[in-house]
Amino acid sequence: MPPAPLPAQLAELSELLGQMCTTVAGALQRATYALLESRQRVAQQVVAADAEVDALRAKVEEIATDALLFHAPVAGDLRQVVSAIRTAGDVERMGDLALHVAQAAERGRPLPEQVRDDFAEMGRVAVQLALKAAEVARTRNVILAVELDADDDTMDDLHVHMFGVLMDPEWPCGVPAAVDITLLARYYERFADHAVVVARETVYAVTGQEPDAIPI
Amino acid sequence: MPPAPLPAQLAELSELLGQMCTTVAGALQRATYALLESRQRVAQQVVAADAEVDALRAKVEEIATDALLFHAPVAGDLRQVVSAIRTAGDVERMGDLALHVAQAAERGRPLPEQVRDDFAEMGRVAVQLALKAAEVARTRNVILAVELDADDDTMDDLHVHMFGVLMDPEWPCGVPAAVDITLLARYYERFADHAVVVARETVYAVTGQEPDAIPI
Repeated sequence: MPPAPLPAQLAELSELLGQMCTTVAGALQRATYALLESRQRVAQQVVAADAEVDALRAKVEEIATDALLFHAPVAGDLRQVVSAIRTAGDVERMGDLALHVAQAAERGRPLPEQVRDDFAEMGRVAVQLALKAAEVARTRNVILAVELDADDDTMDDLHVHMFGVLMDPEWPCGVPAAVDITLLARYYERFADHAVVVARETVYAVTGQEPDAIPI
Repeated sequence: MPPAPLPAQLAELSELLGQMCTTVAGALQRATYALLESRQRVAQQVVAADAEVDALRAKVEEIATDALLFHAPVAGDLRQVVSAIRTAGDVERMGDLALHVAQAAERGRPLPEQVRDDFAEMGRVAVQLALKAAEVARTRNVILAVELDADDDTMDDLHVHMFGVLMDPEWPCGVPAAVDITLLARYYERFADHAVVVARETVYAVTGQEPDAIPI
């Protein structure tokens, strides 16, 4: 079978990256639900679904490599292909982080009341960022991408707040719970951070410039 | 100036990736020393040197993009170029993790005696892995790369042991120290993990196969 024309391959890359972001958003949403409500069955389903994200990444790399091999793209097209390879790596990592949250939920230790609301909020913000990243990947909308970069500040604030709660001398839940929560909070923060990188990559692919250089 | 011939570009990519790995190995070594000996000045130097790794990554991406643009490489050469782009991302992340260790050392809270030896050992293993990754990147030696994959087990064992220490009901150093240590241990484990990915990438670039498929 002859390779697809370049524009079709580029469109498929955008679509697949969007699909990857939507998939990891769904995974983190379910993992957060499993964590908050101690639903181990749901957690297991998230763990089982991680292979889907890995398969999508392999597909992105296959199409990107085909595009390089058969069409030797230049300028913005080349940037888009290279950026798709990098972005797929970031989104796969988001999938791994959703998986880590699900694995924590699988162990079935209930979250202390003190931090439930914070995790619910971190989950909400992280899922929103991933869905926005999906839209950025699909539409290559630079303005939306620059907005997403700013949204991440909310996650950083939540992360800082969470450490304040843990460091309080009155923290009543002991060291093991604090260790679990430290890692969980880190997973959410890293997940959000990768969503930002996806958006930054897209800005670079579309404009050839870093997001900081875009005046909006 | 005309672009360099493809073989020269490929050789430079290998050399630069090796240099990146050596640089982050040195950064983590100094960060670990700063952490163990509460040497804040050394920690500050590590923080200041992180820009060097970012610059090397930018250089890798520039040469890789030039190679794609001017030579439209195929087969193993194309795999090497694509793999260089991905690998540079992993090594930059290793630099970020060394930076996080240095930032913790900068804050100047001494490590509890109970975990000093563990961190010294995690530092030693992680630096070794990065130096081996440097050699893999430079020489593209597949057998060394497969060995490195196995070496990472030592890090995983240390990481598990560390959590055992923290989870012990007799842990005497309180929650804030436990939170710091949890994150620090995670930085070392992730650093080592990225070194493994660098080796795996190299195996793939050289052979077109995943490391698990190489019988040695």
